[in-house]
Amino acid sequence: MTSIAIGDQILDLSSLTSLLEENVPELKNLSNVFSEPTLNKFMSLGRPIWQATRQYLQQILSENDSTLRDNIELKQRALISQKLARMHLPANIGDFTDFYASKEHATNVGTMFRGKDNALMPNWSHLPVGYHGRSSSIVVSGTDIVRPSGQISPGKDQPPIFGASKKLDFELEMAFFVGPGNNLGEPIPIEKAIDHIFGVVLMNDWSARDIQEPFLVEGPKQDPTPLKYLQDTGPSAYDIHLEVKMKSNHCKSHVTIANSNLKYMYWSLKQQLVHHSVNGCNMRSGDLCGTGTISGGPDAINGGPNKSPLGSLLEITWNGKTKIDINGNKRTFIEDGDEILLTGYCTNENYLIGFGECIGKILPTYK
Amino acid sequence: MTSIAIGDQILDLSSLTSLLEENVPELKNLSNVFSEPTLNKFMSLGRPIWQATRQYLQQILSENDSTLRDNIELKQRALISQKLARMHLPANIGDFTDFYASKEHATNVGTMFRGKDNALMPNWSHLPVGYHGRSSSIVVSGTDIVRPSGQISPGKDQPPIFGASKKLDFELEMAFFVGPGNNLGEPIPIEKAIDHIFGVVLMNDWSARDIQEPFLVEGPKQDPTPLKYLQDTGPSAYDIHLEVKMKSNHCKSHVTIANSNLKYMYWSLKQQLVHHSVNGCNMRSGDLCGTGTISGGPDAINGGPNKSPLGSLLEITWNGKTKIDINGNKRTFIEDGDEILLTGYCTNENYLIGFGECIGKILPTYK
Ligand SMILES: [Ca+2]
Ligand SMILES: [Ca+2]
Ligand SMILES: [Mg+2]
Ligand SMILES: [Mg+2]
Ligand code: NI
Repeated sequence: MTSIAIGDQILDLSSLTSLLEENVPELKNLSNVFSEPTLNKFMSLGRPIWQATRQYLQQILSENDSTLRDNIELKQRALISQKLARMHLPANIGDFTDFYASKEHATNVGTMFRGKDNALMPNWSHLPVGYHGRSSSIVVSGTDIVRPSGQISPGKDQPPIFGASKKLDFELEMAFFVGPGNNLGEPIPIEKAIDHIFGVVLMNDWSARDIQEPFLVEGPKQDPTPLKYLQDTGPSAYDIHLEVKMKSNHCKSHVTIANSNLKYMYWSLKQQLVHHSVNGCNMRSGDLCGTGTISGGPDAINGGPNKSPLGSLLEITWNGKTKIDINGNKRTFIEDGDEILLTGYCTNENYLIGFGECIGKILPTYK
Repeated sequence: MTSIAIGDQILDLSSLTSLLEENVPELKNLSNVFSEPTLNKFMSLGRPIWQATRQYLQQILSENDSTLRDNIELKQRALISQKLARMHLPANIGDFTDFYASKEHATNVGTMFRGKDNALMPNWSHLPVGYHGRSSSIVVSGTDIVRPSGQISPGKDQPPIFGASKKLDFELEMAFFVGPGNNLGEPIPIEKAIDHIFGVVLMNDWSARDIQEPFLVEGPKQDPTPLKYLQDTGPSAYDIHLEVKMKSNHCKSHVTIANSNLKYMYWSLKQQLVHHSVNGCNMRSGDLCGTGTISGGPDAINGGPNKSPLGSLLEITWNGKTKIDINGNKRTFIEDGDEILLTGYCTNENYLIGFGECIGKILPTYK
């Protein structure tokens, strides 16, 4: 069943099937999508239907509306405490692509591994660089992660050895789900990109720095001007406040280690999607695209004294050169039992919309 | 419905449900897997069930067995001409990984782009290099392919331009489907790898050489000795003869442009699978892993006069330096309307097992 979060509860949309049928004409004969185990079908229906559905749900959740407020039987059926619910991935994710769209992050990583003068690879400023990832590896918030083992280089000119990662990191990311897909061979133009983006979630891209070294980087405030197919009119950035917290084994409280914002991203979500499909690559409803690590803000380049806008330990500790303090323990990278918690919200004078939590703990490697 | 090829016909396994139930004890209560639209569930059942099923099917397809031979009604229902059937992908492919496991191919490409002395990247000889790909882009043989457009570099130090690929190539590959999967965090050991490999298919990895340049390469006859988790006992290579044919627009016959063999692959399928899961990556039934381009045989390095063992036009024409003749037309890369046909077979004194055809034609780019 599919639900939406409201305060500390969730609203089960499958309980509202007949109400939705009656009150949202766009959902005529379609309201059974909320009884499916994933949102894929709803994602494929397109923006007008998402908007009409959202509008109606906002209406019945407002204080002034009696539909839900005065129907005790329905409220008991449809509203469930988040604590009693078991969360699942919102979609069956066909494919997953992870972009590398934060200029500050790309500059930091490039500076670390290739020096200041070659920080950004030449192609970075011309297109949103992306990597395909495994959709099988995407797990719901709260899933423990076993420390990965693999081949590790003990030093230059020495053969690799096998072992557990010693440089385990998080990456603060957001990701968008694809709404309606496109056919193989037919790119999505930038004018229509927004209609193919269903919504945005928090994502932690766990990264073993010593097993799989990062290998790409990037350029400036959309200077040079992007090629025509990537040129976007109107605002495309989202002001989403992001926070990273960390907790060491057996400790009770999380310590804030970074604050960032999705608006710092150099390449917009729309540009990422357009570039991804420009070669004719077909996107499917429920496919997921990560933004890449989000490091932003005035102090984000070259690890200033204020480390807070940096979206990875790689940057915060400058590849292990400096240590941070977590619950009285020193850390360069993530140790067994450590927990990483990502949160995010948007706000204006009237609203505060939260993105829930993205949390995970590292378990010892598999023997 | 799922079927197997037999001569120029296919045998519809869903027509044999009750026969399979009665005669294959391992399929008790499971024979409905053949009525599903894909083989994913059958793939997940494991080697003993695949073997028992194959053995029974071989028995009823042999000349000496009367089950099918003398049952005209069943034969009419179950045997269908391949020409009348519409082929589909055998599985719902959750994830797709493409390896780069042919030493000859990696050496050729590395020589072309980095020179003879740096042909193989240092890590190539230590592990089977693989890239994640999009499973959405995998299409059944016979599907026309629209020429991709994207950013193309007009030359060093010049900004990229947008346009259709002018260096469109094929890659002769094979690919294996994953049988039973593994849990996230629990690697597949080399001793058990074979039980997780369902079977092998032909694959053409269409490649736009000017949009997405190849960027990785490799080392020798498993020297240095692989790390322990990659060490394999017993024969792991497969002697599968492979042929590439090409046909230009409006011409009738295909011209052979390459012959190779899966046995030349440096890293075995088992090693590819083991390395893929060693970091705890979970594989799912129906996931697909490509071998990477298969260039092999004594003349395969550095494009000798006999180009036939080379699995890509990139190598055959040495990045466009020499031309080949196809139906009287000169070619360096693939032009609109050209068709590529891959075939493969294994044989011994008693058997010849074919892999069918993997065919596709290039259409003009999308405007
Ligand atoms: Ca990332
Ligand atoms: Ca390939
Ligand atoms: Mg990543
Ligand atoms: Mg490939
Ligand atoms: Ni993928």
